[in-house]
Amino acid sequence: MSYFRPNIERMSGYIPGEQPKDGIYIKLNTNENPYPPSSRVLHAINEAVNENLRLYPDPVATAARIKIANVLGTKPEYVMAGNGSDDLLSIIIRSFAGEGDKVVFPYPSYMLYKTLAELQDSTACNIDFTEDYALPKDFLIKGAKVTFLANPNSPSGTMIPSQEISRIASQIDGVLVIDEAYADFAEDNCLSLVEQHRNVLILRTLSKSYSLAGIRLGFCIAQESLIQGMMKVKDSYNVDRLSIAAVVAALDDQKSMKTHVEKIKETRLHLMKSLQEMGFFVYPSQTNFVLARCMRGISAHTLYQELKSRKILVRYFNLRRLDDCLRITIGTREEIDILIQHLKELLTTKHSKISNVCCR
Amino acid sequence: MSYFRPNIERMSGYIPGEQPKDGIYIKLNTNENPYPPSSRVLHAINEAVNENLRLYPDPVATAARIKIANVLGTKPEYVMAGNGSDDLLSIIIRSFAGEGDKVVFPYPSYMLYKTLAELQDSTACNIDFTEDYALPKDFLIKGAKVTFLANPNSPSGTMIPSQEISRIASQIDGVLVIDEAYADFAEDNCLSLVEQHRNVLILRTLSKSYSLAGIRLGFCIAQESLIQGMMKVKDSYNVDRLSIAAVVAALDDQKSMKTHVEKIKETRLHLMKSLQEMGFFVYPSQTNFVLARCMRGISAHTLYQELKSRKILVRYFNLRRLDDCLRITIGTREEIDILIQHLKELLTTKHSKISNVCCR
Repeated sequence: MSYFRPNIERMSGYIPGEQPKDGIYIKLNTNENPYPPSSRVLHAINEAVNENLRLYPDPVATAARIKIANVLGTKPEYVMAGNGSDDLLSIIIRSFAGEGDKVVFPYPSYMLYKTLAELQDSTACNIDFTEDYALPKDFLIKGAKVTFLANPNSPSGTMIPSQEISRIASQIDGVLVIDEAYADFAEDNCLSLVEQHRNVLILRTLSKSYSLAGIRLGFCIAQESLIQGMMKVKDSYNVDRLSIAAVVAALDDQKSMKTHVEKIKETRLHLMKSLQEMGFFVYPSQTNFVLARCMRGISAHTLYQELKSRKILVRYFNLRRLDDCLRITIGTREEIDILIQHLKELLTTKHSKISNVCCR
Repeated sequence: MSYFRPNIERMSGYIPGEQPKDGIYIKLNTNENPYPPSSRVLHAINEAVNENLRLYPDPVATAARIKIANVLGTKPEYVMAGNGSDDLLSIIIRSFAGEGDKVVFPYPSYMLYKTLAELQDSTACNIDFTEDYALPKDFLIKGAKVTFLANPNSPSGTMIPSQEISRIASQIDGVLVIDEAYADFAEDNCLSLVEQHRNVLILRTLSKSYSLAGIRLGFCIAQESLIQGMMKVKDSYNVDRLSIAAVVAALDDQKSMKTHVEKIKETRLHLMKSLQEMGFFVYPSQTNFVLARCMRGISAHTLYQELKSRKILVRYFNLRRLDDCLRITIGTREEIDILIQHLKELLTTKHSKISNVCCR
């Protein structure tokens, strides 16, 4: 006999990318930033490591919300901080979707949306992106309580224009969660939709552009009525003292973040061109990674394995529409040049086991 | 029209104790430890504040689980780490209780259990403790999916013997969550029940005895089958890099923790005696706080307000069975002596507004 709810019993759970404990890999698999966090952030955290850690943090992370609101040009009442974006995604699904309620998200996208729907015992409505990662006409599901849209999308790196997202927000019944984890690497974002739509929630994170995946800090921007209700759902002290210190300092140092983002965008262009020259189809990326499709019968899985044996980790998804692709995080220029060198070697005719295995 | 689930819409949410942003209060209201964390913990966190913060933490907090297992004499597979005990309580309720399922907990106890049941749209079964905080015969509810028991209990500070809890674990249908946030201040604990019962989960925290409320670290001990299933429910990276470093160092320094616990227990005895001398009824405490009942028509609420105006914060609950009581966290000996001094002043006949107002 199981003590678990039937939906928990039958689901398999979200599997995050590999996090090897040794440091010997060139790690291009989980979209971490290759550059260190701002030294001002490290200093601010060190300052906060003091005897006040005996005290609970501010339950509503006031200092963080004021700083975020200032930098983004909104109000603190429109901001909620979370223990990473994942915490906020959990808070959102628990706020708006119950058992049997419809939860909509495109495919392929961030696989956690499906997991979250399963955890709530909601009805997951998984709608395929078109071949070129536009939204299909049937993306609007009548009566959906929550619609998730990663924009830019992972793992494709592609982006839906904000005008189209605004139109969707007007037409759907429930809330629209625009997961902008990669917005700082993109040419546009949907922040302005929050004032226009009372059902829009925007998610941001310090994990990617601010190089702070290790401290877990995400935030949500939405109208006050949504934030207030979600406050009932979050854990009382979901963001710790050190993370509050970190986010205030991180948002204060826009220059450090933007310098790193610019470098990553340059390297992204370099990698995209190189992959195209090697014969990959590369989706247009607005993120800190690229999705490269293997052409001419090259096996993406074998490439992944061969790269891993050479101590380079990229992301391979054994999933429909992705099993002929590699998702490659933009590392430093040096790391990406090493990757390119190895890919070139692997794609020479000598490596018959790669070029002769067809994955589709 | 509300976008929220009906259960979220109608619930009021958990209200944590006041966390004043200025430092001018003697803060005896949220059971924080008056002594600083071990200097070895602060050092370990500072060491972890480095460029590796750009990388995600270990999703299953291996180093923390190994250390916890070693110190507690169990296996890492029996341990899950969380972003505070509250994170683990959320994971537990989402794992085991769905809409309409029965969730049992005693009253008065940690008010969050009711909030968690409401968040799941479960059926909260709130069973009164007896007058002397024993468990009543009807505590066993047929078909309950989750039974919560804070032991020692908050806000009473009292404790149910482990043999009785073992009997309950054998008799109930679902899981039994023994919330041992205050176990380090008690004479007994239920850790040994984990091996005997496949439905028992023990919760511990670094917030109280280890003086680390500010970093948010709790852990759960249960048989591997429960931990494995709960891994599907937790956020992928629920514990950050700095908290993992902190818990390893904190559990390594048992001496620092135990020294502070001993001091707190001494001060607890002193406060209990003083309160009794002043005419309060004091429940026997196995925690770092005491629950004191006002006798002879003294108003607990007025006392709370008067103390607050004198910059001393204690906890007052405007709730049945608690509205004639104050819950007082054990501070330093100096802080408690100041509290006692003010209480004595307030209870003199001069302060007619206190002694003449009857609260029951």
